[in-house]
Amino acid sequence: MVSLILLLPILTILSFFAVFPEPAHALWPQPRNLQTGPSTLRLSPSFTITVGVPNPPADLLAAAQRTRALLFNDKLGRLVLGRGTGDLKAVSSARVLSHLTLKLDGNVTTTTARPISVEAKLPFGQRDEGYRLIVPEDGSAAVLSANSTLGLFRGLTTFGQLWYTVSGTVYTLGAPVEIQDSPAYPYRGFMLDTARNYFPVSDIERTLDAMSWVHINTLHWHIVDSQSFPLVVPGFTDIAQKGAYSADAVYTPQDVANIVSYAGARGIDVLIEIDTPGHTSVISKAHPEHIACAEAKPWSTYANEPPAGQLRLASSATTNFTVGLLSAVAKLFPSPLFSTGGDEINARCYHDDAQTQNDLAGRSVEQALDVFTQATHGALKKLGKTPVVWEEMILNFNLTLSNDTIALVWISSSDAAAVASKGFRVIHAGSNSFYLDCGAGGWVGDFPAGNSWCEPYKTWQNAYTFDPLANLTTAQAPLVLGGQQLLWTEQSGPQNLDSIAWPRAAASAEVFWSGSGGNVSAALPRLHELGYRLRQRGVHAISLQPEWCALRPFACDLTA
Amino acid sequence: MVSLILLLPILTILSFFAVFPEPAHALWPQPRNLQTGPSTLRLSPSFTITVGVPNPPADLLAAAQRTRALLFNDKLGRLVLGRGTGDLKAVSSARVLSHLTLKLDGNVTTTTARPISVEAKLPFGQRDEGYRLIVPEDGSAAVLSANSTLGLFRGLTTFGQLWYTVSGTVYTLGAPVEIQDSPAYPYRGFMLDTARNYFPVSDIERTLDAMSWVHINTLHWHIVDSQSFPLVVPGFTDIAQKGAYSADAVYTPQDVANIVSYAGARGIDVLIEIDTPGHTSVISKAHPEHIACAEAKPWSTYANEPPAGQLRLASSATTNFTVGLLSAVAKLFPSPLFSTGGDEINARCYHDDAQTQNDLAGRSVEQALDVFTQATHGALKKLGKTPVVWEEMILNFNLTLSNDTIALVWISSSDAAAVASKGFRVIHAGSNSFYLDCGAGGWVGDFPAGNSWCEPYKTWQNAYTFDPLANLTTAQAPLVLGGQQLLWTEQSGPQNLDSIAWPRAAASAEVFWSGSGGNVSAALPRLHELGYRLRQRGVHAISLQPEWCALRPFACDLTA
Repeated sequence: MVSLILLLPILTILSFFAVFPEPAHALWPQPRNLQTGPSTLRLSPSFTITVGVPNPPADLLAAAQRTRALLFNDKLGRLVLGRGTGDLKAVSSARVLSHLTLKLDGNVTTTTARPISVEAKLPFGQRDEGYRLIVPEDGSAAVLSANSTLGLFRGLTTFGQLWYTVSGTVYTLGAPVEIQDSPAYPYRGFMLDTARNYFPVSDIERTLDAMSWVHINTLHWHIVDSQSFPLVVPGFTDIAQKGAYSADAVYTPQDVANIVSYAGARGIDVLIEIDTPGHTSVISKAHPEHIACAEAKPWSTYANEPPAGQLRLASSATTNFTVGLLSAVAKLFPSPLFSTGGDEINARCYHDDAQTQNDLAGRSVEQALDVFTQATHGALKKLGKTPVVWEEMILNFNLTLSNDTIALVWISSSDAAAVASKGFRVIHAGSNSFYLDCGAGGWVGDFPAGNSWCEPYKTWQNAYTFDPLANLTTAQAPLVLGGQQLLWTEQSGPQNLDSIAWPRAAASAEVFWSGSGGNVSAALPRLHELGYRLRQRGVHAISLQPEWCALRPFACDLTA
Repeated sequence: MVSLILLLPILTILSFFAVFPEPAHALWPQPRNLQTGPSTLRLSPSFTITVGVPNPPADLLAAAQRTRALLFNDKLGRLVLGRGTGDLKAVSSARVLSHLTLKLDGNVTTTTARPISVEAKLPFGQRDEGYRLIVPEDGSAAVLSANSTLGLFRGLTTFGQLWYTVSGTVYTLGAPVEIQDSPAYPYRGFMLDTARNYFPVSDIERTLDAMSWVHINTLHWHIVDSQSFPLVVPGFTDIAQKGAYSADAVYTPQDVANIVSYAGARGIDVLIEIDTPGHTSVISKAHPEHIACAEAKPWSTYANEPPAGQLRLASSATTNFTVGLLSAVAKLFPSPLFSTGGDEINARCYHDDAQTQNDLAGRSVEQALDVFTQATHGALKKLGKTPVVWEEMILNFNLTLSNDTIALVWISSSDAAAVASKGFRVIHAGSNSFYLDCGAGGWVGDFPAGNSWCEPYKTWQNAYTFDPLANLTTAQAPLVLGGQQLLWTEQSGPQNLDSIAWPRAAASAEVFWSGSGGNVSAALPRLHELGYRLRQRGVHAISLQPEWCALRPFACDLTA
């Protein structure tokens, strides 16, 4: 496979440009190697997908079934004038494709054909998302092959994006199609905060679907925070009981299992975050003994947003409690990763907390944080988890962290260089490019000016032109695992989840799958088509331009 | 009524402040005179609304029925900790309200009890939206009285906002309630652009419902523009046939009649706008002879956004065509107002158009515009319409305009003073405070920076703190008819209509009903409740804060 990838680029670049200015396929993210031809091909109404894998895992069979259903349910008219009626003549005389066959490459035995959900949770070095897709122009069976069921799933997703519908006929342009694909970066995420405002399970599942359609492979679930604690943790059920917004606004262990399973079947790992020691005010409702400066006023003295409250990190009782809590949570989530957070620790909170001052017994907060973190990370390590932290844990404190700790760089993407210089791996989550919530004004009350710290709105263009390796040395480049867009939900809820996230969140998905350097003009027609396809599939992706522009690729470019 | 208004303020101010910090009623807009008491009152499950009006108009009866249904369908838990469970004791021992009686004040005969829809379309001086609502604390019948069915409708809307639900019981706090209400300004609007992207009739109707719930009385319908022409105009059907995005993306005369009727029954007048002579590119699809610089490139030379194209204002044939078109449209809309637009006229378009240069025959564009405008406005006047124009028609050109012409001030609210100094009436529609679309980045293609001319996002706080009379003399103040928030839809569609508009658009509704000067801290708890109530009624209003804040009035204020 490696040699093929090395051989293909020249052909690919040629064919890539040959399809502009009118893209023949609305593929997102752009495959890394794509060859197209001149022919139209239509799908047989009795089109079948054959999973040619011995003892195929149930989630692969289900994925094939879903893909098959979408082919006929999408009913996406091509985004050109006439919505594809101009293709009718070519469609009517086109060859008919009746079959897609899936097969695993190499020496596959039944024991190696692991479920997608298992492949999706392998450590990064072992996870293989590559696939090869060949759609001949003569109507003979299309073939999708990969080294893993996860690769087959990615290929199915791409196959599902090849098709348009006109007058009831499903067809593609540019056959034959040959795709050799694999991601530029192993981590491509989407973060959702379910603590500021709660989201029902169905919203999360719809989001997972949308993520899977653009090859995003990780849901970073910021599940709890100072405002609410919706996670029902076995052995710690009193926290959600007293800290969820309501008895209905919770995620039970069964909900979690369903979400993890739903995600896994779509090639998505669920990276859970229990933010510590800050962002934990709500734990005081059930365990006041563990929280310093709980709801202390003025909140702005003790926290970046209300309510204030941090775990008493210098207390051995609180440390034990936290280790127990994190361990219990870790057992609900099979991911190899676990985030312990670590952002925005407020020094004044500990300074003014008499118990913490007593517990410190002359140690600094940093020293106590080191002990605390070694305890939590040590427990997670024992459970097989690799710790993930916000960047402050690496850049603001001198802590004893395991070398494999992963940093979420959020304050500024430029901090990636400092993290890398300390040898830690980086996930790009920069507020400067990837915060979906920015640009909606300030939300704190009694503040008529109403601005906010992370203005302006982070456009898809901003995310799309992001360079993951900026300011890094060649040697540091492999430390960048990938990146994600993030939705903090102070001003969001189920009402605007889709509209604030889609299609914007697809921008980073392409950067981290296809590699950076794409240009926004070339990308826009494909992004329109993704948006329209998402809508056909029930995700309320917004319009990026007037439909007049969407139907006329490049006509609304700045210099057109 | 006038004397009552003069007598009430002192009592009102006292009671207004007495209910803080925990508002007993989530009324939006705030009634101009409100007195509340200490008692809880619950609604009988067999609660009835009696319309004590001889030969009541059907739309009033229907409004009473809808109000009655909402009382029991809202199921809004009070936005405090426990969502009203703390009220249960008071509720269980509360008196029961079984009746609301509506009656018209004065010497009402069957001929004066006009439908709401008729009252809603009267000229401003004759339109009476005032009402008086008394809800006794002893369970005796509540009484809603007004001089008009339109006033009764406003009162019904307010009555519907008095109620919460806890454990299946519908109740209010703060009885007795006495409200004497009427608007500070006669025009309170919401503008929707259905040309950049199309909205189905159902979206417009849902928007009309939401508007009516905050006493907004005008839908300013920017129905067509350069990108698409969805309005099917009798005698001019070819324009929509060739200029709508699709055969389905149109408003037929029957759709218009339905929308006008739906609006009228909710106390809303529909102010239609056919923007001229600019913003008309799409007319070239059916009538190329009438459009200068149609889709000329580069678009940025000939228009503020693609595609370019303006009516050939110097041509008598085009003038006649426009007069015919506007007259045909005017007959579809019973409003006393009609907007002929007039914004963003591009000089270069006419300069480079050979036919226009020939048609001008030595006249200036301004002179031709004067003739053109006198023709269109003259025709509209004959049909009983008062012309509405964008501010450039008054400030940028020296035109012969009727004294009663109304200006939409959009470029900057500070331009209101210049408009008023010329003696024209003003509707505030300033991009600096009221443009709902601003702050989402630029949408033109091939523009990686992605900023836009009207950054940043216009927060609800910005709209709420707007002063309609800033920089105006006392003598000029009566020229201000009111104002509106506006949704231009380059980056919007049905997917984000609710989330971009609500509850933000309620901010101007309160400014122009209750009067300016409200403070954002006091308003926020009520605005939260409005947002939650809108959701219960099917409008996807967004969260303005984490629910933690919404349940704790003032706890997330900047200095709390």
